Amino acid sequence: MPNKKVGKQSLVFENKPYIIGRGTVVGQKEGQGPLASDFDIILKDDMFGQKSWEKAESKMLKEAMYKAISRAGISKEDIDVMLAGDLINQLMSSSFAARDMHIPFIGLYGACSTMTESLMVGSMLVDAGFVGSALVGASSHFCTAERQFRTPVEHGNQRPPSAQWTATAAGSAVVASPAILPRGMTGKPKMIRAESATIGKVIDAGVKDANQMGAAMVPSAVDTLLNHLEDLGRDIEYYDLVVTGDLGFIGKEMMIDLLAGAGLSKAAIKEHYNDCGTMLFSKDQDVHSGGSGCGCSASVFCGHLLKRMEQGKIKRLLLMSTGALLSTISPFQGESIPGITHAVSLEVE
Amino acid sequence: MPNKKVGKQSLVFENKPYIIGRGTVVGQKEGQGPLASDFDIILKDDMFGQKSWEKAESKMLKEAMYKAISRAGISKEDIDVMLAGDLINQLMSSSFAARDMHIPFIGLYGACSTMTESLMVGSMLVDAGFVGSALVGASSHFCTAERQFRTPVEHGNQRPPSAQWTATAAGSAVVASPAILPRGMTGKPKMIRAESATIGKVIDAGVKDANQMGAAMVPSAVDTLLNHLEDLGRDIEYYDLVVTGDLGFIGKEMMIDLLAGAGLSKAAIKEHYNDCGTMLFSKDQDVHSGGSGCGCSASVFCGHLLKRMEQGKIKRLLLMSTGALLSTISPFQGESIPGITHAVSLEVE
Repeated sequence: MPNKKVGKQSLVFENKPYIIGRGTVVGQKEGQGPLASDFDIILKDDMFGQKSWEKAESKMLKEAMYKAISRAGISKEDIDVMLAGDLINQLMSSSFAARDMHIPFIGLYGACSTMTESLMVGSMLVDAGFVGSALVGASSHFCTAERQFRTPVEHGNQRPPSAQWTATAAGSAVVASPAILPRGMTGKPKMIRAESATIGKVIDAGVKDANQMGAAMVPSAVDTLLNHLEDLGRDIEYYDLVVTGDLGFIGKEMMIDLLAGAGLSKAAIKEHYNDCGTMLFSKDQDVHSGGSGCGCSASVFCGHLLKRMEQGKIKRLLLMSTGALLSTISPFQGESIPGITHAVSLEVE
Repeated sequence: MPNKKVGKQSLVFENKPYIIGRGTVVGQKEGQGPLASDFDIILKDDMFGQKSWEKAESKMLKEAMYKAISRAGISKEDIDVMLAGDLINQLMSSSFAARDMHIPFIGLYGACSTMTESLMVGSMLVDAGFVGSALVGASSHFCTAERQFRTPVEHGNQRPPSAQWTATAAGSAVVASPAILPRGMTGKPKMIRAESATIGKVIDAGVKDANQMGAAMVPSAVDTLLNHLEDLGRDIEYYDLVVTGDLGFIGKEMMIDLLAGAGLSKAAIKEHYNDCGTMLFSKDQDVHSGGSGCGCSASVFCGHLLKRMEQGKIKRLLLMSTGALLSTISPFQGESIPGITHAVSLEVE
């Protein structure tokens, strides 16, 4: 059998699948943030014309997917498989979106790491030729997450400064083999390709405070990044940008400290590292420690970062969505919050 | 890029990964059923020494995985990735098992189709050489599922005859490339290999009764089987056994009727088709329409079916775990129950 495994937990894409389409839908608050101009659809009403927040989130994911497909210049019938996940119990957003899409579906759950998980597994399936194209994506909605994981939204619970704001956002991308590339696309100057990936381990540093999600996820992000760099024999400077999913303002500072503690140059970290949770909202938007949710890195990646890659402003990107694997009942049973971080390296051809 | 895609939604494994280990843990009731002698561990107490049913289920999955690893004759350190899922919100069983295993983890959710989903994706990753070995599996627990999806267990709710019994069971298998095969294993007469797979679509026939899960899942099972046979150019007679996940006694009859309606010979269907939900329990065990839950097909496959393949009694098997993608809140929002069915073809060398 071939061997695409590199080091302990990484792998290289032999054929480097293309990212040929991307789509995003975000809520009102996200549309007032610094990245507003990068999103395809900004909702005027977070209900999106639906009767429940859950249905609204599912519609957001579906619309982001349709946008990704149309931007790729292909049709839904050209898609071989959809890989997606979200935070709602039993992946309600993704499952019902997949029902309406009516294409083969692989449901994934990695909490807020799901955007990278779907991109990683989708790229593997395309790279190996099991499918010609994969539609990947993830979503979250402030109101669906808040009422499922925390308190009734109407309760207007006061949030500590360390809490993060679940993004109302969906992002989707189309991963494809050259055979699927639409006519005229081949040879475009700025083709984005998946180059390698690192599958994350579940790491639990014992954090039990659900208002400290950044802190709970940082250890896994550090572990995945250090393993990725070691497995591939790279420095952080290799990447124009290494971006974590949603560590937020506090988690980002911890990440920088821990990476510096592991021997990386603090100047290099500051120049090459950022966090989607600190990019999606500005500090004056009253989101406390920043954005979170599957939709955070999904929308920042599919809206902002892929656009910068298309423009050639970012040539090498390491996307590292971060997930906190607590359940709605695990804290009540005395469990701490484990984290997971997957990584996918993308490059402009 | 290579092309392993066949027909509309199927794929072939070019290198045919080996299934080198398997492990099962089941509850007391499952241990009193017709397959009792096929399971590795039968619990005397469904709490498994834990303080909650959820922790018990997580421990069951972990123990099934350890059993699969030890039966494979390898060690945990030889495993490159774990792929698993369960029914508990946020995959509590799998996530916490993955934390304790401390190996790279890809979380999957396909409701009761998860055993086949994990086997399918794990086999793809091994076949393509992204990993040398994959630990796959799924679990369910009557008490965790009952209280999450239905009513408090203590309530002792009366169940209609069409209801199924969520299995307290976990199953796990090790998928590996030849490079991982333990010394002495190569050339064994009965090597089991993954041969092809079909990725399921989400199909919704409009069933809204959560006590008719078999009926809700049957349309997706029919769709996947017919597409699999067409994509691969096979008849149902090609397989010694085609086995669905957990359609139960009522669902199995519907499946037979629908397949016959689609033109398959009823005699051939009856000779070559069965359902794990009707195999795990006998009718006199008061389980109404039979077994269900991720653990149903996981334990029947990893305990009973793989054992029969090792013995050469089954040479070609099509495993088709079936999942109902309802969420804990979707029925309250007027949604019907969509189903999904993935298929993996296995053969004895």
